[in-house]
Amino acid sequence: MINNFSFQNPVKVVFGKGTIAQLPKLIDKKNKIMLTYGGGSIFKNGVYVQVKKALSGFEIIEFGGIEPNPTYETLMKAVAIARQEEVDFLLPVGGGSVLDGTKFIAAAVPYEGNDEWNDIVLGAKRYSEALPIGAVLTLPATGSEMNYYAVISRTETQEKYGMGSPVLYPKFSILDPETTFSLPKTQIANGIADAFVHVMEQYLTFDQNTPIQDRFAEGVLSTLIEVAPKVLAENPAYEDMANYMWAATVALNGWISTGVAQDWATHAIGHEITALHGIDHARTLAVVLPHLMAYKKDRKLSKIVQYGKRVWDINADADQTAELAIEKTVAFFESLGIPSKASAYGIGEETIAEIEKRFAERNQKIGEHGDISAEDIRKILEMSIS
Amino acid sequence: MINNFSFQNPVKVVFGKGTIAQLPKLIDKKNKIMLTYGGGSIFKNGVYVQVKKALSGFEIIEFGGIEPNPTYETLMKAVAIARQEEVDFLLPVGGGSVLDGTKFIAAAVPYEGNDEWNDIVLGAKRYSEALPIGAVLTLPATGSEMNYYAVISRTETQEKYGMGSPVLYPKFSILDPETTFSLPKTQIANGIADAFVHVMEQYLTFDQNTPIQDRFAEGVLSTLIEVAPKVLAENPAYEDMANYMWAATVALNGWISTGVAQDWATHAIGHEITALHGIDHARTLAVVLPHLMAYKKDRKLSKIVQYGKRVWDINADADQTAELAIEKTVAFFESLGIPSKASAYGIGEETIAEIEKRFAERNQKIGEHGDISAEDIRKILEMSIS
Repeated sequence: MINNFSFQNPVKVVFGKGTIAQLPKLIDKKNKIMLTYGGGSIFKNGVYVQVKKALSGFEIIEFGGIEPNPTYETLMKAVAIARQEEVDFLLPVGGGSVLDGTKFIAAAVPYEGNDEWNDIVLGAKRYSEALPIGAVLTLPATGSEMNYYAVISRTETQEKYGMGSPVLYPKFSILDPETTFSLPKTQIANGIADAFVHVMEQYLTFDQNTPIQDRFAEGVLSTLIEVAPKVLAENPAYEDMANYMWAATVALNGWISTGVAQDWATHAIGHEITALHGIDHARTLAVVLPHLMAYKKDRKLSKIVQYGKRVWDINADADQTAELAIEKTVAFFESLGIPSKASAYGIGEETIAEIEKRFAERNQKIGEHGDISAEDIRKILEMSIS
Repeated sequence: MINNFSFQNPVKVVFGKGTIAQLPKLIDKKNKIMLTYGGGSIFKNGVYVQVKKALSGFEIIEFGGIEPNPTYETLMKAVAIARQEEVDFLLPVGGGSVLDGTKFIAAAVPYEGNDEWNDIVLGAKRYSEALPIGAVLTLPATGSEMNYYAVISRTETQEKYGMGSPVLYPKFSILDPETTFSLPKTQIANGIADAFVHVMEQYLTFDQNTPIQDRFAEGVLSTLIEVAPKVLAENPAYEDMANYMWAATVALNGWISTGVAQDWATHAIGHEITALHGIDHARTLAVVLPHLMAYKKDRKLSKIVQYGKRVWDINADADQTAELAIEKTVAFFESLGIPSKASAYGIGEETIAEIEKRFAERNQKIGEHGDISAEDIRKILEMSIS
């Protein structure tokens, strides 16, 4: 049965060709803007020029160099500058890492305590204030453009955690599929895998008789599967890039998860792998998900079978359908050039032992039933290196 | 190809059992509230008592008697009272008619001109101000609880028009499926038909290669088909009423229509039938849609075939699939107790001539291509009485 829920997502999405030109209608000119970006791809793909042209006459300072898996260490430098310069508005231009990092900056700038890591990232204190954010998305993947979540890493301690608050919803996000054409294929592949697993985390739990939510989720999965070879081919069509971009956004904007239980165990385990090994986020998800599905097959059976039937068109008995659905999932990741074995990334027993220890020390159990223990996590990861 | 679009829907949905009790957290106590309602069903189903209990200590005045197809004449009385009493907040408790009527009141109260019909309903002037609205929904059908549209009738001139503005989004809507248990089965049947046609208006146009939007739309259609016999049976289960309620909301909250062409010809024609004959809105839609589908079969073919395959599981050649899909649509309305022939409601040539005249006088062409003329409308309606 559907759970009671409360849903509100106020983000304004401005989608389509040429929409970066609408920036001056979306930000009040009285704001002092901090434009944030990553490794500099926005200088090569023409997006920086488009943004600056649209905002000519606006007061803008810039902060670049936000890394993939944005770090607390880097972001605190931006926080110091934004405070000193009395910035009013944050304009992340880039992918999920730039958006996530900028959400942390937004929460940290007005924060008055002295432990941003503990209070904002680990969520020890509630905060009701943040600088306003408006985003220009260039890499469809994380869904950060239409939700209030962020994932922040800390180099010093090799940690990576999710954070979030409704005050961190972007005021607007510009999604122009044309900005995605120059993306390296590996980033597109990662983006598709990331969006796919976002849907699975919200969908592959147990049967709650929630047909709207299930069919929306299945619709996003089928679309990602359909569009993947097209956007990974040479010279993809605009409309395919557009469908990939919109699929990645709705994969994590709350539309598919109203009133349903959610899993997120794959992400919790994947974050540890990235924190320890620096492996791309999406690849860590592919390394965990199929093995988690196999490990929890009995308890997730009704949903794995529904997924197999509706998304992969498998018609067999329940057990066989589930087996085949897991195989199809692995094959899908492989079609993206993403192996589903942790051993393919050089991860072995030592890393697994460290991850088990971290979950055990935090006494943290995960999954939609809160029944996946540190020991279960070790077993799941062992399946991934066997 | 997907169109450029801008999307923002800030409505907070509070969904589930017992959620009316959350009202005091959703409205500031400093507001003077006007509670609006319809024919008084809220006194019989216990909703009035729940609302008053939740808001004990709040200053509330009441305006009842908003009719199905809410009239300008009735609503202007509420406007006069709200102005005189200096109401700050509007709380519609009821179905789509109460919500729609209250949206008109919200726009009219701060309006300073002297022709509310022309400027607000017919949309001659832009208005950027409205009283805030928070709704308690008791009849799933129109989607008004999560959009900014309203349909208003005028008795004097037998007219009925849609209106809307982003300032008319409810601040919140409470959707408690338990409030729907006492609904007459005819109202539930109408609600399902109404929601079904809302989806069709946004979906059944032409192939734009928008797989997310298509699959979401098909998901709502399949859910309505699946849930209809369950909610029309004696003693329906809570979870089925909940799925029906959520389906009707997402049928018209903008999620399925981002970046796609829309039709709305069935509604435009149906409104005229209601304006002239007072026939239930949903029934007028059933009277128009299948005949419009048949009349525009060639131009809508790719989408009718997709609908036939995915929603009705028809596997035949394109033409036959389209024929069968139209038959299935008629049979679905009939399963709800809603005939798809205008003649079944006593509508004949005289009404058709008047409707043709109205569209001709307004020189109004409708449909996703703007290619349905007054003469086409006559032909469609003649198919419905033959």
